[in-house]
Amino acid sequence: MSGTLYLIPNTLGDGDAEALTQVLPEPVRAQAAALGYYIGENAKTTRAFLKKVGTTRPIQEIEVRELNVNTRPAEIDHLLAPILQGTDAGLVSEAGCPAVADPGALLVRRAHDRGVKVVPFVGPSSILLALMASGMNGQSFAFNGYLPVDANERGKRLRELEVLSRKANQTQIFIETPYRNKAILETLIATCAPSTLICVAVDLTLPGETIITRTASSWKKASAPDLHKRPAIFLLLGA
Amino acid sequence: MSGTLYLIPNTLGDGDAEALTQVLPEPVRAQAAALGYYIGENAKTTRAFLKKVGTTRPIQEIEVRELNVNTRPAEIDHLLAPILQGTDAGLVSEAGCPAVADPGALLVRRAHDRGVKVVPFVGPSSILLALMASGMNGQSFAFNGYLPVDANERGKRLRELEVLSRKANQTQIFIETPYRNKAILETLIATCAPSTLICVAVDLTLPGETIITRTASSWKKASAPDLHKRPAIFLLLGA
Repeated sequence: MSGTLYLIPNTLGDGDAEALTQVLPEPVRAQAAALGYYIGENAKTTRAFLKKVGTTRPIQEIEVRELNVNTRPAEIDHLLAPILQGTDAGLVSEAGCPAVADPGALLVRRAHDRGVKVVPFVGPSSILLALMASGMNGQSFAFNGYLPVDANERGKRLRELEVLSRKANQTQIFIETPYRNKAILETLIATCAPSTLICVAVDLTLPGETIITRTASSWKKASAPDLHKRPAIFLLLGA
Repeated sequence: MSGTLYLIPNTLGDGDAEALTQVLPEPVRAQAAALGYYIGENAKTTRAFLKKVGTTRPIQEIEVRELNVNTRPAEIDHLLAPILQGTDAGLVSEAGCPAVADPGALLVRRAHDRGVKVVPFVGPSSILLALMASGMNGQSFAFNGYLPVDANERGKRLRELEVLSRKANQTQIFIETPYRNKAILETLIATCAPSTLICVAVDLTLPGETIITRTASSWKKASAPDLHKRPAIFLLLGA
């Protein structure tokens, strides 16, 4: 009888144990505290997460293995082996919900192939929180990950997303590395049609949480929030 | 000084107070319990939610107003008026996260126009939980709401979504009214290419939770779970 693969969300910032209670329901933290085997992107930060959770056994007795962009497909079976032998495992992300914008999806996919039960837990997702708070269309939306790094390519991609959004009334969501946040907002404001809605959500669930939705023309007249090195997510709805 | 509009998630099924503690962090329930003004799709079910929350004042002293498909745009300002006068409000959905697949987004949009602070809270979203647990691509995905009712149109739409998914490696997510679940899964299995991944997630966060990801060809050989009148969400990844 196989163990279960639990998908355990993490805080969206470098929060402490108190911050974890703000975003994870109590039964989720209790299940997370009881597991003896964890898979995370980085062993050190996974152990930092376990410290916040308050594990029922000493952290050094919990097996922690890594799954990240360097993991070869063949190693996925190695990660699954203890679960197939009956051990319950936790998959945890560096931030937010595992297997959404991180490499964990490969493990989940393989778990289904091998008949392992997968249980997703409730926790913070910057994508979903931003969508809720944006006021944009939640009946049709797309998450597009990162935009191209090259400025020309990025502008082109934004124009494509705006056209797509307008045609299908589909909210378009994307993220950037924090040091490029300011540049991306400026490009958005300069590129989009005056009536297109642009939302920026910064520091979601954190003390500095700021969520602003305005038309491109209103953004031109208003002062932008400080985005420098703060986690941010961007949304647009073409109009 | 305006009040704040809190976006408060609900359980995914007809859960009791205990079910609410499974899916909402304690501070979210505390904030929800303290509010004196609520906006929901239906006043009766909103009061049922408040009973589960365990409000700090008697429920009959809490103002509850409706926002649903019958609400005219002009009434949105009426709903916002108490907030503009300084009252904090809660927006709650019939199930899951407000302003995602319900009419609440109109209120949130208008709140931004009027400079009202919007605070989204963590809670269960069948879209996000299904995506996490599907093992499909979480770096690029789209939620498409309901499929067309007409069988021909539905088949056509599914084929479009499969092509789009294959081209862009974008997970496609959609929902159905529970009594059509069985028909939609049969259409999916019959329509999709043999190697396309199909996931069905049923009763998420509820006692009967079942999440299965298989290729279309594996679905053909395997027995399908009982979907009749159970809340379900469907995902496909074209291959």
